[in-house]
Amino acid sequence: MTTREIAEDFCALLKEGRHEEASARFHAEDIVSIEAMEGPMARLEGKAAVQGKSAWWYANHEWHGGGAEGPFVNGDQFSVIFDMDVTAKQTGQRMQMREVGLYTVRDGRIVEERFFY
Amino acid sequence: MTTREIAEDFCALLKEGRHEEASARFHAEDIVSIEAMEGPMARLEGKAAVQGKSAWWYANHEWHGGGAEGPFVNGDQFSVIFDMDVTAKQTGQRMQMREVGLYTVRDGRIVEERFFY
Repeated sequence: MTTREIAEDFCALLKEGRHEEASARFHAEDIVSIEAMEGPMARLEGKAAVQGKSAWWYANHEWHGGGAEGPFVNGDQFSVIFDMDVTAKQTGQRMQMREVGLYTVRDGRIVEERFFY
Repeated sequence: MTTREIAEDFCALLKEGRHEEASARFHAEDIVSIEAMEGPMARLEGKAAVQGKSAWWYANHEWHGGGAEGPFVNGDQFSVIFDMDVTAKQTGQRMQMREVGLYTVRDGRIVEERFFY
């Protein structure tokens, strides 16, 4: 599969809310996930850690709406634009967030995801 | 200046359509510009070459509308989302384009720009 084909399939799953399936199919075992923040979530290594972060996030936020737009491709990388309208369960704070995800592909799998906001 | 401050100032100039000033102030002399296409514009090196490409582009497209959204920041990089509604003067073809620009900052200047579509 080309990077564009992988990007299209990955993004199609995200648009359908099938995040776990997207990770299972396309995350490399040694994927690195980089957030634009300090703390323990700033850099995670390995598919299990990244899936754990995702599971934590969905468990701790109430989802009101949002979506994924893309992909936008260049070489072995692609971008996805995310919108999220969520309430953080711990604080009760409702937030509208918009961010850009940058994904790097190697050997048919995503080896890095990096989020911009 | 932090990467976020540079990103904010650069993006503010783009939003005002001041592309030449944005380049003059923030592009490094050795900036590399990478497009997601084949051909002579695929990779340009140096501020003069990048400014030349930009001048060529604006001379060869009629601008109907568009804008820049962002910045979205992570570490020493930031993203900007672009919308363009233009007519290519050579072909007369009107196009609505949407793309993501990814910028890398070093020593207060943009050393790489990479466009995704």
